[in-house]
Amino acid sequence: MPSQSCGHLKVLVMAGGRGTRFWPLSRAVRPKQCIALSGERSLIQQTVDRLNGLVKPECVLIATGRDMEQAVRQQLPEIPAENFLVEPRGRNTAPCIAWGAVEIARRWGGDTVMAVLPADHLVADEVSFRQVLAAAAEGASRTNSLVTIGIQPTRPETGFGYLKVGGELGRWGGKPFLRVRRFVEKPDVETARTFLESKEYLWNAGMFCWTVDAIRDAYREYLPGTWAAMEALTHQPSTIEKLWERFDATSVDYGVMERSRGVLTVPADLGWSDVGAWSALPAVLGASQGGTLVAKEKVIIDASGNVVHSPDKLVALLGVEGLVIVDTPDVLFVGRLDRAQDMRAINEELERRGLQRYL
Amino acid sequence: MPSQSCGHLKVLVMAGGRGTRFWPLSRAVRPKQCIALSGERSLIQQTVDRLNGLVKPECVLIATGRDMEQAVRQQLPEIPAENFLVEPRGRNTAPCIAWGAVEIARRWGGDTVMAVLPADHLVADEVSFRQVLAAAAEGASRTNSLVTIGIQPTRPETGFGYLKVGGELGRWGGKPFLRVRRFVEKPDVETARTFLESKEYLWNAGMFCWTVDAIRDAYREYLPGTWAAMEALTHQPSTIEKLWERFDATSVDYGVMERSRGVLTVPADLGWSDVGAWSALPAVLGASQGGTLVAKEKVIIDASGNVVHSPDKLVALLGVEGLVIVDTPDVLFVGRLDRAQDMRAINEELERRGLQRYL
Repeated sequence: MPSQSCGHLKVLVMAGGRGTRFWPLSRAVRPKQCIALSGERSLIQQTVDRLNGLVKPECVLIATGRDMEQAVRQQLPEIPAENFLVEPRGRNTAPCIAWGAVEIARRWGGDTVMAVLPADHLVADEVSFRQVLAAAAEGASRTNSLVTIGIQPTRPETGFGYLKVGGELGRWGGKPFLRVRRFVEKPDVETARTFLESKEYLWNAGMFCWTVDAIRDAYREYLPGTWAAMEALTHQPSTIEKLWERFDATSVDYGVMERSRGVLTVPADLGWSDVGAWSALPAVLGASQGGTLVAKEKVIIDASGNVVHSPDKLVALLGVEGLVIVDTPDVLFVGRLDRAQDMRAINEELERRGLQRYL
Repeated sequence: MPSQSCGHLKVLVMAGGRGTRFWPLSRAVRPKQCIALSGERSLIQQTVDRLNGLVKPECVLIATGRDMEQAVRQQLPEIPAENFLVEPRGRNTAPCIAWGAVEIARRWGGDTVMAVLPADHLVADEVSFRQVLAAAAEGASRTNSLVTIGIQPTRPETGFGYLKVGGELGRWGGKPFLRVRRFVEKPDVETARTFLESKEYLWNAGMFCWTVDAIRDAYREYLPGTWAAMEALTHQPSTIEKLWERFDATSVDYGVMERSRGVLTVPADLGWSDVGAWSALPAVLGASQGGTLVAKEKVIIDASGNVVHSPDKLVALLGVEGLVIVDTPDVLFVGRLDRAQDMRAINEELERRGLQRYL
């Protein structure tokens, strides 16, 4: 049973991102992981809830940023106060994971298995998720390899990196572990179609599992500066502020995983989504009359394919298609759904005009 | 000077309409005339303000309905309490004007000149408005004719009735008074273009001036049932509730004006608008980047030709065109501006689903 076979599993939840593409629901002081896209629980609350029965709250570390620390802590009262790692400033995932590894080694020892999970993804099939994570932990422990959870692609997505997989090394926790032959950057749509048809590629979802010793070895080899800083941090945890700038500001994918030999992947079919922008919601939440609407009441006349978030109001739509409409106490945003990627332009104008309070 | 030449002028402001096409800003308990489309003052407040220096508040009667009585009274503290005529229920303009005429005759005598003004129109040029109204009062008094203020058309509008004008009868108050040869129902766009080019047509704006005796005579001839009820009402003002059903539920245009001989019009160029729907606002308020926006702050990226009302928020638009976006505390409406006339469909669905509280 999963909960027995991975009693040593600790989890680092990465909750340092802003998620500006969910503006204005996501804000500097209430980042994407702290918002509830549907229902009552926020994305980070769902991320922790999802571990229920597999990992206890005291075995979960939360890495986050200073701006959003308060919001994140408030949402997770079950996590002990000392389990929050507050990054001096955002420096991508490699430093964050290094710090988490050091902290887990200090508390529980170098042979501890740790999983790394993003705080702001959605997973529809929680039972499968726990089975896969338990298996990943067992495989990581037995093989001492870096393990990444590979998501079965369901569409020719151009927004993710891919894993090209090779043969099966073995099975642990009831799941096959495949060799990762290489990491592939975000492809164009034609390439993505080929990947989908070939069945030789999985999505790289940013969910990892390894022993602390294994990830330390990988950092030592591929990010030696970060490794040296990690060593110093291990002996003096209070020096994080000073050491933070010495960590390499890169992603763990680019800095470590893509360069490592012997990386393994567990294929998983979880109903997973990174919900990267408003336009991702219909695939995750489904659509009915008018589109994908979170509203108190709805009146829809000749409208379809919209994404609406206005949970406390009656929302009336007349003749509109393909819009994203987000209503918050101090901001109302209406845009074309196919331009959701251009949210950055709004952010930039707010900064330029000194309206940072709306960011 | 106008204020001297029309010392006897009394005004009946008709404030009984709902103005459902400005939903959700206009509501059953806060009808169109009670909303502020721009600035601080509502349409009915602006209507009364506009009489400043010409007619004192105690010479203004307000006809309104039971649903909206409270909202209307609250907005007009300067109008004496006994000057509000609260209609038992809406029965179009003929009964409303009959009651106003009776009440004015009872208080000030049958030779009093009365003007009838809608509560929910906008007039940009207030000085011209007062000059025209003063002149209309003088002409109505001297000729004992029914006088209607005719608006110079500025576009081939298909939403209004027109007046076909004939020769000039004379000048009073410095303005020419033209004979009205006939009233024309709302034309199609081709006909409207012909009207505009011919310069022989004016818009019928629903603003009238006459002596009480003259309008009584017209009612007696063309709406004898209403006339009989008026006579009874004159002797027993408390019987309005019982008599109300005996008034003809028709418009004064159709029931009286179109049938009357010798109707006169004063042409006027006032920057007038009946602001009949959200789509009328750009012509009235002007447009800048993004369209016609009432908002606390605006961020506009590639958006134009929208009408937005969200006075307390930052409004951000991305790539959208031709939308009407109205944000109220309990309703958010987003529709295509070219479908503003279909607001009725939303109203009907709200009623059908028992959501009248949003009407």
